[in-house]
Amino acid sequence: MANRIAHIAILVSNLDEAVKLYEDLFGTRLDMSKTVSEQGVKAAILSLADGAKLELLEPLPGSNMARMLEKRGEGLHHIAFEVDNVDKELDRLSEKGVELIDKKSRPGVEGMVAFIHPKSIRGVLTELCQED
Amino acid sequence: MANRIAHIAILVSNLDEAVKLYEDLFGTRLDMSKTVSEQGVKAAILSLADGAKLELLEPLPGSNMARMLEKRGEGLHHIAFEVDNVDKELDRLSEKGVELIDKKSRPGVEGMVAFIHPKSIRGVLTELCQED
Repeated sequence: MANRIAHIAILVSNLDEAVKLYEDLFGTRLDMSKTVSEQGVKAAILSLADGAKLELLEPLPGSNMARMLEKRGEGLHHIAFEVDNVDKELDRLSEKGVELIDKKSRPGVEGMVAFIHPKSIRGVLTELCQED
Repeated sequence: MANRIAHIAILVSNLDEAVKLYEDLFGTRLDMSKTVSEQGVKAAILSLADGAKLELLEPLPGSNMARMLEKRGEGLHHIAFEVDNVDKELDRLSEKGVELIDKKSRPGVEGMVAFIHPKSIRGVLTELCQED
């Protein structure tokens, strides 16, 4: 069961420009940014006044995400739900026949994460994550 | 400036099935559902324990959204930010050169809303809304 929406992720072609645009248009604050080589992205976490978060993702050259950006363009990428225990949720979802991308949790931009295949969830790439 | 993420909207082909799926997989609660003929959709608002909301949208036959569903399939559709005053924000964004879909706020699924063109915001269809 999901406790809350951890973040909404947006695929962008230029992270610095996108961070500035969201700050300028919507007043988001940059919480942190880092490169996650294993995932092939530079990521920035933006937050709103109430703590809601956006995750901007700029693919590194040659990554799967770079191919997706080329094919589909910039836009909404995935939704992340915070759960108490990612691995327990993966087991529960798997028993229901949900197709998983990650069979086990792994380190993400923040804490442990796992992705669920969009075809099991109405075309929505969905991440589960838990706080560190 | 945005106060919070009001909801994340997801385009689905069958609202009742999608409502049950999200309840079953993530423990969302159905807050309300209604048909908004002017927008060509049946909509359901789902909430999580902390009050975060998902909006599921099933296009009515013949609507623009039905064509989008046919072309792009189910998936993430837009993000909605809550602001204090939609019309004031539209003016502010317009002055910055942001392309608006709605020049003035209009009644939405919940309260007054307006949409901003995705091409001004990194490919993300973005809604502004204010509480009733």
